[in-house]
This record gives sequence, C-alpha cells and structure tokens, in this order.
Amino acid sequence: MHQETSAEALEVILHKAKTAATELKKMSARQRGSFMRTIGKEIELLGDKLIHTAMAESHLPEARLTGERARTIFQWQSYANAAELGTCLDLRIDTANPSRTPPKPDLRKMQVPIGPVAVFGASNFPFAFSTAGGDTACAVAAGCPVIVKAHPAHPKTAALMEQAILRAVEKCRFPEGTFAQIWDPGIEVAQALVSHPVIKAVAFTGSFTGGKALFDLANRRKDPIPVFAEMGSVNPVFILPGKLGADPAALAQQFAASVTLGVGQFCTNPGLAIGIEGPDLDQFIAALTQQVKAVAPANMLHAGIASNYHARRSQALQQPGVAAPGISDITPAEGQGLATVAVTDAATFLSNPVLHEEVFGPFSLVVKCAGAAEMLEIAGALQGQLTATLLATAGDLASNEELIHHVQDFCGRIIVNNFPTGVDVSLAMHHGGPFPASTDSRFTSVGADGIRRFSRPLCFQNWPDEFLPDELKNENPLDLWRVINNETTLEPVKS
Amino acid sequence: MHQETSAEALEVILHKAKTAATELKKMSARQRGSFMRTIGKEIELLGDKLIHTAMAESHLPEARLTGERARTIFQWQSYANAAELGTCLDLRIDTANPSRTPPKPDLRKMQVPIGPVAVFGASNFPFAFSTAGGDTACAVAAGCPVIVKAHPAHPKTAALMEQAILRAVEKCRFPEGTFAQIWDPGIEVAQALVSHPVIKAVAFTGSFTGGKALFDLANRRKDPIPVFAEMGSVNPVFILPGKLGADPAALAQQFAASVTLGVGQFCTNPGLAIGIEGPDLDQFIAALTQQVKAVAPANMLHAGIASNYHARRSQALQQPGVAAPGISDITPAEGQGLATVAVTDAATFLSNPVLHEEVFGPFSLVVKCAGAAEMLEIAGALQGQLTATLLATAGDLASNEELIHHVQDFCGRIIVNNFPTGVDVSLAMHHGGPFPASTDSRFTSVGADGIRRFSRPLCFQNWPDEFLPDELKNENPLDLWRVINNETTLEPVKS
Repeated sequence: MHQETSAEALEVILHKAKTAATELKKMSARQRGSFMRTIGKEIELLGDKLIHTAMAESHLPEARLTGERARTIFQWQSYANAAELGTCLDLRIDTANPSRTPPKPDLRKMQVPIGPVAVFGASNFPFAFSTAGGDTACAVAAGCPVIVKAHPAHPKTAALMEQAILRAVEKCRFPEGTFAQIWDPGIEVAQALVSHPVIKAVAFTGSFTGGKALFDLANRRKDPIPVFAEMGSVNPVFILPGKLGADPAALAQQFAASVTLGVGQFCTNPGLAIGIEGPDLDQFIAALTQQVKAVAPANMLHAGIASNYHARRSQALQQPGVAAPGISDITPAEGQGLATVAVTDAATFLSNPVLHEEVFGPFSLVVKCAGAAEMLEIAGALQGQLTATLLATAGDLASNEELIHHVQDFCGRIIVNNFPTGVDVSLAMHHGGPFPASTDSRFTSVGADGIRRFSRPLCFQNWPDEFLPDELKNENPLDLWRVINNETTLEPVKS
Repeated sequence: MHQETSAEALEVILHKAKTAATELKKMSARQRGSFMRTIGKEIELLGDKLIHTAMAESHLPEARLTGERARTIFQWQSYANAAELGTCLDLRIDTANPSRTPPKPDLRKMQVPIGPVAVFGASNFPFAFSTAGGDTACAVAAGCPVIVKAHPAHPKTAALMEQAILRAVEKCRFPEGTFAQIWDPGIEVAQALVSHPVIKAVAFTGSFTGGKALFDLANRRKDPIPVFAEMGSVNPVFILPGKLGADPAALAQQFAASVTLGVGQFCTNPGLAIGIEGPDLDQFIAALTQQVKAVAPANMLHAGIASNYHARRSQALQQPGVAAPGISDITPAEGQGLATVAVTDAATFLSNPVLHEEVFGPFSLVVKCAGAAEMLEIAGALQGQLTATLLATAGDLASNEELIHHVQDFCGRIIVNNFPTGVDVSLAMHHGGPFPASTDSRFTSVGADGIRRFSRPLCFQNWPDEFLPDELKNENPLDLWRVINNETTLEPVKS
C-alpha cells in the first residue's frame, strides 16, 4: 500500500528530525506529557477500525487486540506520568564549597534527550511493540524525535497508528519532525536509517538475526550508537522437587496454558522446563502431554512465522535423544501452529546447542535431570534469557541457594511460582536480559525505566540559577525528587 | 620487573574471578564498604614509598601525586558510602494487585553486579585512573571482581597498589579472586582477557586508538559486552563577546593556566578556544601568547607521550592557515613538553579535520570567527567532547540560546566561567561524553554514578519476602530510598 521511502525522502525526514530534536529539548516535561496523553486519546479514537485492521493483518483475536490496545494507551499515559515525575532523570546537585582545597564547584546533573531514535517494531504486538508502541513512547518521553520503520506484516495498522500520532503532533503544535514512519519491504532503507549521523539510538524487537544485524551495523558507524534489541529467549522453568511433588498435574496445566497462550508467540514463552527425573516428573510430563494434545491449532501471525516455527520445531524434534510425546492431535491448516512438547535428558541437552535455541511458537522442551547436580550444570550452561522461573516451595528455595545464584546470572527477571508470559507495564518491570536475550542487559524495553534508553547525563558546572533547566534550579519549581549533596529530598537548594 | 602473564596463568585468574563473582554477590553492601575503606587505608599505609615510586616512573611532581593519592583514597571512601546508601541501585517495588484484570504480580527490581570486569588504566593518573583507581573502585562497589592490566608506564606503582588491595582482600577475608593484576608489554594477553567469556565489562582510560580497539574487540565476541572507554577530547572553550570585552587579559591568564597545568596532560585540557575577531580577541591572544612564552618546559609522563605530543603539535602547526604566535621561549630538553598556542580562522578550522583532533599536551588552538553565525557553525561541526566551556556574562547566555543548545548536544559537562581541568569526584559529576570522547555517553567514569557501569537490573517477580535481597524486603531493613508504587520513600512496604 505504501511506496518504499526513497533516499531523498529519508534525507528530508532526517533533516526534520534533527530540527525537531532541538525544539523538543526546549519543551517541558509537562508539555511532553500532555502530547503523550493526546496520542493515547487519538489511538482510542481510531476505534473499531484499528482492531479490525489489526485482526485482518495479524490473525490475532479481537479480545487479545482490545487488551493490547488498552496496554498501548496505558504505556503512553504511564510513561507520560514518569516523565513528569522525573523518575528517570537522575537529578543530582552538589553545591559549591569555595573554601575547600581545591575549591569545589557547583555541579548539577540530569538526563537529557540522546537525539533522534530509529524504532523497529515486532509483528507479534502490532500495537504495543510497533509504530505507537513502547519504544516510541519511551523515546518521546525522553524528549527524542522518532522515526519508525513500519512493520511489513501489518502496514495498514502501522498507517493508522501513524495518523493518530500525527494528529496529536498537530493538535499539540509539536514540531513536524517529532515523528515519521518509513516504508521498506527490504532492508536498504532501514540500513540507511541506522547508518545516518542524525540517528543517535536504535530500538528493535524481533529475531536474533535482525537485532544482531542492526547492532553490528550501528557499531560499524564512524560514531557507534546504542542499539536496544530485544531478541527473545527460551525462558527456562526450573521445577524444584518439593513443588513438583505437591501437585504435578496442576503445574502441568498451568505450564501448558503459558506455552500455548497466543499460539506461543510471546518472547517470554516458556520454551524449556527442567526437572529431576522420577515419578513426579513423569506425571508432570504425562499431564502436560495430555493438555497439549487437546490444544486446537490456531493461525500464527503470518506465513513467515508459521513456516519458521515448523522448520525450527522439526529441527529440534530430529535431534538424537529427543522424544515428542505431546503433539496436538488436531491436524493444523496452512499457517497454523501445532502445539508440541518434547522431552530429552540433561546429557543430550548439555551437548547439543541446537536444543538451547528458541523455537518461536507453541513449543516447549522438558529436560530430565538425574539429580540436583545436573540441574545446576544446566543453569550454568544456559545463555542469556529474558526470564527464568522457579516453581518452588519455601523449602526448595532454601535448599537451592547455589542454583538460584546461577539462574540470576543469566536472566533479567526471575520469577517464583508465576509464569513468564504476561509482562506487566510497571516501573519495577525489567524486560531485557544478558546477550543474546537483548543486546544491552542494562536497559528494559517495558516499564518507565525504558525511557532511560534514550537519554544521557549532562552535567552543568557553575551555572547561574536562572539559566539552569527547571529540573535543576535552586527553588525546585517542578517539585521533583533530587539528590542534593548525597541526600534524597524534595527540598529546594539551601543557599 | 614482571613476567608477562601466561595464557595458563590468565585462565587460573579468570577461573578465580568467576568463583569470586558468586561469592561477592552474597556479601552485603556494608561488607563491600568496609573492604573498600580498608583498601583506602592500605593505600595510605604505602606511605612515601608510593609517592617516590610514582615520581620516578611518571615524572609527576610530589605535590601533584600527594593530591592524587588523597583523591584516590577519597574515591574508595565515597564510592563505599554510595554503595551503602544504595544510590545507584534504582530500587523499585510495585506491589501485587490480585483483583486487577489481569492480576498484577508483585515486582521488585534492583541493580545487581554485572560480573568480572577488566580494567585498563591511564598513564597520566598512576593512582586515580590506574590499578587502584576509579574504575576498579566502581566495579568493586558494584560487587564485581576486577582484573587490571598493569600500565607499562608505571609497573612498580602498579605492583604497590596491587599489594595494598591484596592485603585488604586478606584482612577482610574477601574471596581470593576479588582482584588480580596481569602483565603484558604487548597486547596479546589484554586481547585474551577482553575476549574471555568470564569477563562481562571493560573499563579503559587512554587514547582513542586503544579504546576503540577494545570496543571493537568486545563487540566481535559471541556475546558482546559493554566497553566504557574514556578517550579524551579537545574541550572547546567558547569565549562570548560580553565576557571577552570585560577583561581579555585576565581571561587569557586563567586560560593559559588551564592549558599548561600538569604539562597539559589532562583529558579535560582546553585544546580549543573559539572567539569573535576584533580588538578584544586580539588582546586575549596577545596576553595568552605572553603567558605561554614564559612557561618553562617540563618533563612529560614518558618518552612515548612526549614524542607523540611533538608529532601531533607539529602536524597541527604545519596545516595551512595556522599561525603559532605563542611558543614557550625556553628550549625544551628531551622528553619535555613545549607550551604552544596556535591561531586560525573559522573557515580553516571548519574545512580541516586535523585541527579537530586532540593534541595531548600543553597545546591550544584559538579559532577566530567572523561573527556569531560562524561560532554557531563551529558548535554544530564539533565531534563529541568530555566538556565544553562558555566564558559568558548573563547577557551573553541570554542572547546565545541556540549556541548553548548546540554545545549541549556534543558534550558531557557544560561549564560556565570555570575551566574544564579539575574533575571533581562527586555524585553530580559527569565524566564522559558523546563518541569519540567516550564509547558510551550514558555513563560516567568519575563520581559514584560510575558504579552503574558495572551493574544491570534484575527483577524479582512474586518472591516470598524472606528470600528477597535485603534491599527489597518489605521492612526496608537497610533504610534505603526506594520507589514503591511510583512514590519515592524510606517507608517499609505496607501490607
């Protein structure tokens, strides 16, 4: 529906973004907050058309998309609140002490916008992680212009969201270059975008291949820039003996629900379960098998995702030492995902890197360990993960300290007796993890701390009060929490 | 004096560091703080021997090294305080809400140690940015083991500092792998260190060539890791007309003192001054020339620095359109730095990238602009800088809003009517800047926020209170500032 963005058009867009970057810096957090809430309202005003367009493009059901829309609007609102509260500004003031040797200067520091941001959304969240998704909202909250590459899997949804944002730009009289969307069925325009000196950061949600390519491209620039790529993971679930023994069938039911939720198309889908062999684990596997066999195949997001799922799933099942007791009994149609549970032992898992890779879809691998030592060995061998889950009693937690330390080392979120799907939009959330779960384990892509990705600290030394940003002025006119001479306070600077 | 560390010895060191990483995670911030203060005391106990050893190896004068030792001990103490106060832990708690749809889980987040850190120190600060310098102190404060590559310019100083740290390790019964130093006259061992899977972050202070090479190496790893390289800059000083007209000679005197301080061997040395041509600027240049002519040449840190200075200085002076009215009248001896002020015009500067590069030593280039527009053009053309300085009256600041916005875009610290040399160790300091001043503009290498370089967030979902880290427990037993349900507070979590 859209022509590929030409090189000339991209230059115009980037030039406007550069101009907008300077204009946006002059705006207050309150102005940004108001703009962001207006975007939320404009998304709401797209009404049923948005939902129906996304249903047609993504095969996602109405209820799921209605929920995702609410989540997306909440992201704009809650990140607007965070921007106004200064949560991610790290305000620090150290006052002067002229009588010290050497004299101590007045130093004040805050986060400032990093500059224009390129955003690459995901196909599995056409609202929440795409054109008007969390990355765009975080960048705007930080004060940065955004250029989104429209996702080719949902172009009409992308165009609607673009209209909503541009209407808010106009209503709030924000600079024209605040937001733009580019179109590229291939990768050339996207590469030009990431390589361009005007772009100062990149956010991406999707495959390892795509994220790593952008990361490498950004690092090859004359001036390398940060790339925040969230690339998914297998999200291991460690089933500890006490918890497993209490009710294996109930655990299996919950696990099956998490694995098959949304045809398994979540980056936090639990693709790996690790337990200690014995009757309890056998019972868990039997119950899980039974659950999965009854799951009706459903359409995946698009043909590419479905064929990729079947290829990766087959590859996993063909590995020596892997059995597949749990495969949905219902034959899938073209483009549908077939729920599958496979089983292997720890030695096979540890020796075969193929089994460590994500199979994006309703697939999970259960690994049977001979004992606690093998479970510990697996924890030490896993690559970086978004999440890790412990199904555990208090007794299990108390007697597995070493395991817990190892699990913490490879994940960004560690869960006890919940399931990893369902990533709450809240300040305490961390959605990211050690490589290859994400390219930068220090930053989250969900929750208001994600705003930090698009800012950098700037220190003001010896500035006259009247020329400082409001956030750092003596009087604290915005009533923000600041650390003054190492004390956290709402008070003004005492003169 | 030291044999090159063998590949086998390096493996042993890395294995111990990996074990220590797990042990250190179990220690409280108070234990870390006590260990860090003990290191400070052990450095003090090295006494005159440390000063005399560094004097012989660095040619730095006694008073300077005595001051640097005090700064180094203060770094250990103040970062210990910050670790105990939880300043850089970003503690966030969002409590559960089971009645929400979907149910909201309990989420708690804090910064955890990133893992073993490799540190490469600088020759110009044998104490404060070397073996026991700020990078090592920040990594220890974050809870990470450290492996330092001893700087070949001051091996005996490095060995003394190593002894001080190892004595503290023993006294405080910290794990053996908490600290190690490796020796390598070349680059092979250092490359093996940075490429090793056990290492999770790298800190470097020094040249662009060295820092960029480590950055590229770390990004080529199977699992790329962050590199915090502080690579210096030219630290432009914008002399605005009102301030310049008030007292050109006094400004010139201050500027000369900053350029020639410590034979110009500071990464914040002001290597560039930008003013608008006219009688005031002529008077400034004349006074600066007079000052510089009277500066006695002094020994530089080592022969390599001196020869590099003379080569880069000569290269700058040989560029067309560059004059050098201010060269010290006193003939330098071998290994000494010759204070130099050069002058050019804006067109020459803008068209010649050689003139944008740092000349590490007592050198500065004055650029004469035809007017405010050219000054703005220079601000838009400069690459990333650690600092930028505005010499300005209130009237100058009010009438140069656009210039100030451009200057903020390229620097990490923006100074009014101070000089950039003298980097205060304080929380509000930012020592870093957009590439190529540093490889990661989002992090500082001076001040307690530098601790953040060596941690990453970990989110705990649905954890029983008793198994949470003390920092996140309901009762707030460590009395730390936390953000609970978006409110900054010292209160416990209300049940």
